[in-house]
Amino acid sequence: MGHMRGKASLAFERPPVIISSGSVAGTKEGRGPLGAFFDQVEEDDMAGEASWELAESAMQKQAAGIALKKAGLSHGDIRYAFAGDLLGQLIATSFGNLELEIPLFGLYGACSTMGEAMSLGAMTVAAGFADRILSMASSHFATAEKQFRFPLAYGNQRPMSATWTVTGCGAVIIEKEPPAGGEGASGISRPIARITGITAGRLVDVGARDSMNMGAAMAPAAFHTIEQNLEDFQVSENWYDKIITGDLGEVGRRILLDLMKERGRDLSSIHMDCGMEIYDKEKQDTHAGGSGCGCSAVTLCAYILPRIQDGTWKRVLFVPTGALLSTVSFNEGQTIPSIAHGVVLEHIPGSQAQKK
Amino acid sequence: MGHMRGKASLAFERPPVIISSGSVAGTKEGRGPLGAFFDQVEEDDMAGEASWELAESAMQKQAAGIALKKAGLSHGDIRYAFAGDLLGQLIATSFGNLELEIPLFGLYGACSTMGEAMSLGAMTVAAGFADRILSMASSHFATAEKQFRFPLAYGNQRPMSATWTVTGCGAVIIEKEPPAGGEGASGISRPIARITGITAGRLVDVGARDSMNMGAAMAPAAFHTIEQNLEDFQVSENWYDKIITGDLGEVGRRILLDLMKERGRDLSSIHMDCGMEIYDKEKQDTHAGGSGCGCSAVTLCAYILPRIQDGTWKRVLFVPTGALLSTVSFNEGQTIPSIAHGVVLEHIPGSQAQKK
Repeated sequence: MGHMRGKASLAFERPPVIISSGSVAGTKEGRGPLGAFFDQVEEDDMAGEASWELAESAMQKQAAGIALKKAGLSHGDIRYAFAGDLLGQLIATSFGNLELEIPLFGLYGACSTMGEAMSLGAMTVAAGFADRILSMASSHFATAEKQFRFPLAYGNQRPMSATWTVTGCGAVIIEKEPPAGGEGASGISRPIARITGITAGRLVDVGARDSMNMGAAMAPAAFHTIEQNLEDFQVSENWYDKIITGDLGEVGRRILLDLMKERGRDLSSIHMDCGMEIYDKEKQDTHAGGSGCGCSAVTLCAYILPRIQDGTWKRVLFVPTGALLSTVSFNEGQTIPSIAHGVVLEHIPGSQAQKK
Repeated sequence: MGHMRGKASLAFERPPVIISSGSVAGTKEGRGPLGAFFDQVEEDDMAGEASWELAESAMQKQAAGIALKKAGLSHGDIRYAFAGDLLGQLIATSFGNLELEIPLFGLYGACSTMGEAMSLGAMTVAAGFADRILSMASSHFATAEKQFRFPLAYGNQRPMSATWTVTGCGAVIIEKEPPAGGEGASGISRPIARITGITAGRLVDVGARDSMNMGAAMAPAAFHTIEQNLEDFQVSENWYDKIITGDLGEVGRRILLDLMKERGRDLSSIHMDCGMEIYDKEKQDTHAGGSGCGCSAVTLCAYILPRIQDGTWKRVLFVPTGALLSTVSFNEGQTIPSIAHGVVLEHIPGSQAQKK
């Protein structure tokens, strides 16, 4: 039988577990509905650094540090890191991981990066290639605006379909499943959640060209990965308590639900989008919602994982979504291909008793 | 025992094999010393496309197509792709992989990307997570100059320590080892080479800041990964017939050999650098050598793998090296962290009889 399921999925025979997480968020995110759940909220978005880019790197270092500290581990206990961000040549990751000194696989999946990092990390642990790995993704409003859009001081108007790049970083530590009734390699006997499977996304391009409406570009990729997951595992959407996309926002969510309805699936009650949870729509003026690698990563760590751990949700399909454009491809008139990586997260009975 | 060796390496109990490769090179590379070995040399560097970026994407598609065709496979036979390039947000990869429709893990390791792609690909196959995967990396002189340096028409002078970004793409197909005496899943009974192990690189930053001398920035990363590999596998440098770096160029090679000498290792006769092989130093005016993700990728496919297959080299440590800078990090005065990923490639007795 092995681990392979269908065209693109894996079911782990010995599912790795998430033993710890760290979430660091910016000021705006701290004032949003999830503000109380983050491990750390920056006092200002420069995070005490000399540039926005170094601030984003600092958040990676902090999120990794928090995840390590909560698990009682040091960086030397982590065999490999899987990390990425939105910036050209992944500079937030390169500078953010320097001091960790962990062998690093740099990843780019735009805002799907946390799904990609957790997929490859879980595969590595499930295969016995590491006892313990770190998966991490970050974004920063100011670094992303500088990279992709306008100078902040220009104060450009944004259409209602635009999303707001989340300032923040989420990190998880993934470990071999502890033996039944026993403790894992790090001495943690009540891990947060099991990663029972993954569905790797493929590039989907429906011809979208509007960089101020990335939800519309990404929804078909989310649709494709969710459908592939259900097909590969031979289950219906109700197998999951929640199907959680990364940063489709309001426009993308509507498209996803419509596409699903055409397949006879009603996702309206089980679908959640991290981008729609992280800001207060009425008060925070973020239009269609939040986006960026950090959006799904911090929402996962601060909000989703605790609800899986306490059994509110028994089984979740976590599907971060990425829009694969650059200023060069956009200015050359290209479309926006998208991708979504799916990770199956399951509740571990008895784990709700764990203290932070 | 498992697969883990030392701090950063894996030894595969059932080593995956490379069954096919495809190399596509640009015009300058076609006129260089390796010109006769490439599967395809473009007639012009636009590859019939409307932009340099689309030309690089076209080369990815072509290299993958050649590797598939040589193996008698179609894209549907490949479970996962691991690919990357040098451009911001990996646009060469996103557009180059669209039509392949293979679930994709996008990677960024600068010029170390081919080592990263082969490492993760081999891990995936060795774990039984895929019967067959594709690993691929590309670069293009004109897209890289636009991304990192000056407009081509400006005709800037380059110092002698600068390297020339290779236009080209290399792709390999990695498959489960066939049973002894039998055929592999694709019916290929004489694969090209075995991937017996990997050593994942970590970020190394010695404070280099000169983007026109990336060899000096990367040499310490190559040194670190090679030393880690020898330590993890408990072997001396002479265990390898060749230790082949990606694109250190002349300056970087001298530094690597000096660093090795300080450890009592003489690498002068077994070290080779892809960047120093791909151009004719006297006639092609490329100064310190070639560089870019495509440099090590096409040299691997066109020059190194055939010499492993025919037994000229029995065991090779392939160590592509990456300089992790962007124009933003450079302009903000940051250093250039570097990384190198090591892949152990071994000759398969009897495989020299294989025909293309």
